Amino acid sequence: MKHLFFSVLSILGACSANAQLKPEKMTPESSELWDPEPRLVTPGKITSATSGTTAPSDALVLFDGTNLNQWVSSADAKSPATFTVANGAMTVAPRKGGIQTREEFGDFQLHVEWRSPSEVKGNGQGRGNSGIFLQGIYEVQVLDSHQNRTYANGQAGSIYKQTPPLVNPVKAPGEWQSYDILYTAPRFNKDGMIVVPAYVTVILNGVVVQNHTQIQGTTPYVGRPLNTPHGKGPISLQDHGDLVSFRNIWIREL
Amino acid sequence: MKHLFFSVLSILGACSANAQLKPEKMTPESSELWDPEPRLVTPGKITSATSGTTAPSDALVLFDGTNLNQWVSSADAKSPATFTVANGAMTVAPRKGGIQTREEFGDFQLHVEWRSPSEVKGNGQGRGNSGIFLQGIYEVQVLDSHQNRTYANGQAGSIYKQTPPLVNPVKAPGEWQSYDILYTAPRFNKDGMIVVPAYVTVILNGVVVQNHTQIQGTTPYVGRPLNTPHGKGPISLQDHGDLVSFRNIWIREL
Amino acid sequence: MKHLFFSVLSILGACSANAQLKPEKMTPESSELWDPEPRLVTPGKITSATSGTTAPSDALVLFDGTNLNQWVSSADAKSPATFTVANGAMTVAPRKGGIQTREEFGDFQLHVEWRSPSEVKGNGQGRGNSGIFLQGIYEVQVLDSHQNRTYANGQAGSIYKQTPPLVNPVKAPGEWQSYDILYTAPRFNKDGMIVVPAYVTVILNGVVVQNHTQIQGTTPYVGRPLNTPHGKGPISLQDHGDLVSFRNIWIREL
Amino acid sequence: MKHLFFSVLSILGACSANAQLKPEKMTPESSELWDPEPRLVTPGKITSATSGTTAPSDALVLFDGTNLNQWVSSADAKSPATFTVANGAMTVAPRKGGIQTREEFGDFQLHVEWRSPSEVKGNGQGRGNSGIFLQGIYEVQVLDSHQNRTYANGQAGSIYKQTPPLVNPVKAPGEWQSYDILYTAPRFNKDGMIVVPAYVTVILNGVVVQNHTQIQGTTPYVGRPLNTPHGKGPISLQDHGDLVSFRNIWIREL
Repeated sequence: MKHLFFSVLSILGACSANAQLKPEKMTPESSELWDPEPRLVTPGKITSATSGTTAPSDALVLFDGTNLNQWVSSADAKSPATFTVANGAMTVAPRKGGIQTREEFGDFQLHVEWRSPSEVKGNGQGRGNSGIFLQGIYEVQVLDSHQNRTYANGQAGSIYKQTPPLVNPVKAPGEWQSYDILYTAPRFNKDGMIVVPAYVTVILNGVVVQNHTQIQGTTPYVGRPLNTPHGKGPISLQDHGDLVSFRNIWIREL
Repeated sequence: MKHLFFSVLSILGACSANAQLKPEKMTPESSELWDPEPRLVTPGKITSATSGTTAPSDALVLFDGTNLNQWVSSADAKSPATFTVANGAMTVAPRKGGIQTREEFGDFQLHVEWRSPSEVKGNGQGRGNSGIFLQGIYEVQVLDSHQNRTYANGQAGSIYKQTPPLVNPVKAPGEWQSYDILYTAPRFNKDGMIVVPAYVTVILNGVVVQNHTQIQGTTPYVGRPLNTPHGKGPISLQDHGDLVSFRNIWIREL
Repeated sequence: MKHLFFSVLSILGACSANAQLKPEKMTPESSELWDPEPRLVTPGKITSATSGTTAPSDALVLFDGTNLNQWVSSADAKSPATFTVANGAMTVAPRKGGIQTREEFGDFQLHVEWRSPSEVKGNGQGRGNSGIFLQGIYEVQVLDSHQNRTYANGQAGSIYKQTPPLVNPVKAPGEWQSYDILYTAPRFNKDGMIVVPAYVTVILNGVVVQNHTQIQGTTPYVGRPLNTPHGKGPISLQDHGDLVSFRNIWIREL
Repeated sequence: MKHLFFSVLSILGACSANAQLKPEKMTPESSELWDPEPRLVTPGKITSATSGTTAPSDALVLFDGTNLNQWVSSADAKSPATFTVANGAMTVAPRKGGIQTREEFGDFQLHVEWRSPSEVKGNGQGRGNSGIFLQGIYEVQVLDSHQNRTYANGQAGSIYKQTPPLVNPVKAPGEWQSYDILYTAPRFNKDGMIVVPAYVTVILNGVVVQNHTQIQGTTPYVGRPLNTPHGKGPISLQDHGDLVSFRNIWIREL
């Protein structure tokens, strides 16, 4: 009763115009937010110490180890994807061209596992080189960066020719490596200028290498980043002539 | 030779003051960035399908399953941590108080695995409740949010009483769950105002639930977020009276 | 000649596959970006020491001092705006309701000048109170905060009931004050969750008071910030019962 | 009375442990935040239609039109600043070198007014060229971009050789132009990598041209952006050989 009486007073007090009054105590419920209720997602499971983690329930599985149904040729979207599928992995077919997803995406979380060849050939950019192109445009570099010095903004974990990774957590050639990528797409205005930049967070083998990095534009081999307005786009995988393999690829639109 | 001749011309051309000249072609090397070379980190390994991933080589291991040497009582930093250690996990000792790390941290990547009791008791906030306090201040909620409706900004994956998770990827009680947290600390000025806010990215069981979310301030049970200037701080684990367990905790300062 | 010779060598060097080679010198043109050419805008002019700055050429003038053609009643978009127009200013008609623009906006730069009554009445939130609602939802507070202590997140320059201004640069009652506001709208996903938050920068009387502040949701008098998906929205001006005036309002979509 | 009765009931309801209860209504006071109280700042005044706005009360005035006491030579901090002072403005003394402030700054708001020569000479980068270097490192370009096409990321309002302005709101040669710049400095880690990037917002003649743009690194004439760890730094003004003038320069540390 005493408590009630005090509360009533404090309510009356709240009607007062006395600006010196400090705020009354809130209740725990005041800061509860009930809706919308976050949607249920069943996370993936680690199926063995070597096979990685399965996709969460709301992901679109882009490659489950068996077929390239979700992929087409990057050069010609009407032609089938050129990579070879064997032993639960897809592998670049050198000089037959890159591949890209049939579907296009805006903001997303992407999981990709990749492996550079266990037989080491070449060095620098010439060793275990491929790439993951976000919206078909912005390259997160794939490279055998194990004991293989190259320019920092060209090694695994870099936004190619833009931002180096914070560290180099790459595994040895022949081992499976994982990318977890959080991406929000750029927003352009009528002038073709960016009003909200693209940002990307990249976790390589469980270690953050890009933390909300602003993407500066395209990631060309020669030239500087450029920006041309675009909508949704596919995920593309590069044929750089090396026998890089991929598995366990899934995407969740944010 | 022809190529060389052309290149020489283009160099000469570059010296011209003609503002109408479009830029010459760059070389691939123009956009290479070599230094600083990203530091080597050996990523952790998945040791079995059930034990999670080991820490990367540059992490400070806060709990490896054997002892609480890195922890003290939150109530009294001179007193030992109160949680119990058994079977490779540490577990809240209800009503004996929370624990915090001996060391303090600024910007970091934090990995924590946690498990709510397999025997389900209570509901809402009363079931499998604990919390991870970043810099000892900002709570990432730990809760058995499996088939247990509560307010969205109070379920697992929320910044407590602030921002709900994007989705609910929680596992069943008794299963180990993982948090991967990227955190940059707030920067305050002489007035005590924030000039660079704290941001946090949270991945729960491999699914992003917070993507560069601005932390609004403290995360009290009762009241609104407040901001008081602070420096580095510990990682704290909450005693909310439930037998929540933790394992495989490591941190990397960014 | 010597310089040319060196350049030729460096071009040849660039063709080498030696990964230890450091990048050649770029030319100035390499980092030039020509297109798209930024669109021409004629900035506004200061017409006198007391009348503020006119709108830039690409702005939509929402109020030029003469009429309310761009405005309707907030309560009923089919009814005319209720504010009174005199002496180049529009003034709240107390208890006749707020007003909002006919048009709706996404990302924008907004300029508003406002004046609290020179005759001071009331205190705290009861003095010279109005508000500017971005997209009709998120309130940038208008208040006579001159020698008038109220809660920090409720004074002029605050995101109402969310984030206090960095400082208090408010002028005396009866003086014209200016807001320059940069706003990017939130982006929601199909679940109704925010994937790109709204951010706002606010300059009050030439002094920054909000620097890329994340908007947490609605700004209610009672309650906590909420988020409901929405598209473009109007600019609204509040009737809080006080004779607050406005002039020189313009907006540029970003 | 009816209202009071309802409120009492809602308070009682809040004491229930029923997790299914939706939150009670908050009171207005619940979301009030009183401390810290934003510090008072007296904004500047427009003293005439032609002389711009005076500095706010908490600014460090770097140039008030009368002397270069706050400046030294960029080439040699022990030598006096080389610009000439006349008629309330300072002007580049061509080929005598740039100048920089005696003091160094971290996060700040900077106001600078500048004027390119009314007698137009040269074109492209050769016309009315100077620059404002934030922390002595990152150049916001100063250029007579009036009817003077050059590369977009080299015109007035650009982060030099990085990001073009959103639009071109430049005034005619001989007219005073204003920059309002909001800057937060980058934070580096022990590896020399950036953990919190530098961001800049630039308003040119009252029109936003950079909205929370991430600075990519240094802004060299030749080469790509580089990042080397640094602390506070001065504001520098460039001698590019043109008779560019400056006035009314002030800075507020954030």
